[in-house]
Amino acid sequence: MSKLTVVKIGGNVINDEFLLSKVLADFAALKEAKILIHGGGKRASALMRQMGMQPNLVEGRRITDAATLEVVTMVYAGLINKKIVADLQAIGNNAIGLSGADLNSIQSHKRIVKTIDYGFVGDIDVIESGNISKLLNADFTPVFCAITHDKQGQLLNTNADSIASRIAVGMSELYEVTLILCFEKDGVLSDTNDDTSVIPALTYPQFQDYKAAGIIYEGMIPKMDGAFYALQNGVPNVFVAGTTALAKNAIKGTQLI
Amino acid sequence: MSKLTVVKIGGNVINDEFLLSKVLADFAALKEAKILIHGGGKRASALMRQMGMQPNLVEGRRITDAATLEVVTMVYAGLINKKIVADLQAIGNNAIGLSGADLNSIQSHKRIVKTIDYGFVGDIDVIESGNISKLLNADFTPVFCAITHDKQGQLLNTNADSIASRIAVGMSELYEVTLILCFEKDGVLSDTNDDTSVIPALTYPQFQDYKAAGIIYEGMIPKMDGAFYALQNGVPNVFVAGTTALAKNAIKGTQLI
Repeated sequence: MSKLTVVKIGGNVINDEFLLSKVLADFAALKEAKILIHGGGKRASALMRQMGMQPNLVEGRRITDAATLEVVTMVYAGLINKKIVADLQAIGNNAIGLSGADLNSIQSHKRIVKTIDYGFVGDIDVIESGNISKLLNADFTPVFCAITHDKQGQLLNTNADSIASRIAVGMSELYEVTLILCFEKDGVLSDTNDDTSVIPALTYPQFQDYKAAGIIYEGMIPKMDGAFYALQNGVPNVFVAGTTALAKNAIKGTQLI
Repeated sequence: MSKLTVVKIGGNVINDEFLLSKVLADFAALKEAKILIHGGGKRASALMRQMGMQPNLVEGRRITDAATLEVVTMVYAGLINKKIVADLQAIGNNAIGLSGADLNSIQSHKRIVKTIDYGFVGDIDVIESGNISKLLNADFTPVFCAITHDKQGQLLNTNADSIASRIAVGMSELYEVTLILCFEKDGVLSDTNDDTSVIPALTYPQFQDYKAAGIIYEGMIPKMDGAFYALQNGVPNVFVAGTTALAKNAIKGTQLI
């Protein structure tokens, strides 16, 4: 099986031009096939305020009405995706930007309303791994933004960590996948006040313990849920790591085991 | 040589949801390989005004400062491109949206300043026909927005008619290309006050005569220049036509001969 590295970068990288440039250089230098997934929520919130709209987030998740969906589609699929693609092309990587609508690559459904109506938010059903692998086989580098669709013409705002985990699982039918969720710390911390307290290896029961103890909390919980979902569904190598992880041959950070 | 149809649609189609849906259905029904190019300037101007910016157009051409470039990138590559892709996917066409940065498909340079500084506006140098044909060979339908790049990391706002003409020429190395520039009239009119006065066939000398007589004027001139450039550079079938042209087996409108 060929190797494939799936990397997700978040807003802390995207909003820092110098850091983004460094991370993209490290990503482009990866020798095997690779896929990049990016967020961009902070920029979307800034544009909403500029347009006189009020961002509405519940526990870090964006309530996405029709006008908000237009903004996130513009910012994620337009502004940020094309900037990253142009930056990668400038350093010789043959990048191609996609939303989940492109090639029907990520099909989702509008989230069912339970206690909170998230609006036009997608929960992923299918990764069209065949179409994505046609791009990889042509030596193209797919760059996904956090927009999916329901194949009925409706675009849907979708969590970028979830996209990364589901793409990793979907592609693991065809590749030996390494998933790296990059974020602002160097890995999962055992002491949130100590950035050097990176847990090198984490099992699912340990994750549950840390969660119960309040050491892993808030936005980290869905991120870790997605990462363990990948590990438990065919992705052999799953890391939660800092942005410097890509530069090293041996990935530091937290490996899920 | 396989056949390829290159279709450009403009703002009058994009801003009319019912018309867009009809045109996309007609486009999707085309049996041979196909590429869609879309504009979207009116929507970009509307967003600029909503953001407290003032659109600046000189003879229909947008002066594109850095902030304007961000807006057009968002609107063209994000909002409009992904809506069209999602709509095509909903009717079973395997569309993939691209800017010129994606796959380095359209490489341009920042327009040289003569009398007017257009800012971040691109004049096209190279169509990467090899990469585009890999998409076509996989039965994907490329959908291009009017953003290109200089391969140094700079995105550039680029006229959609020019993109269509240059893609048609670039792909004519590999395909027998039909170029259809759709616009709000049924073809080039010999009497601008009579929508039924469509000129069925137009030579380059006739175009020069109509231009000198003021019958073809303003935005139609660069459109026709691009269309004749395509005809004179390897594209055998070039039409300037209305949006109903795609629905008919025999294309109506004005054929350039």
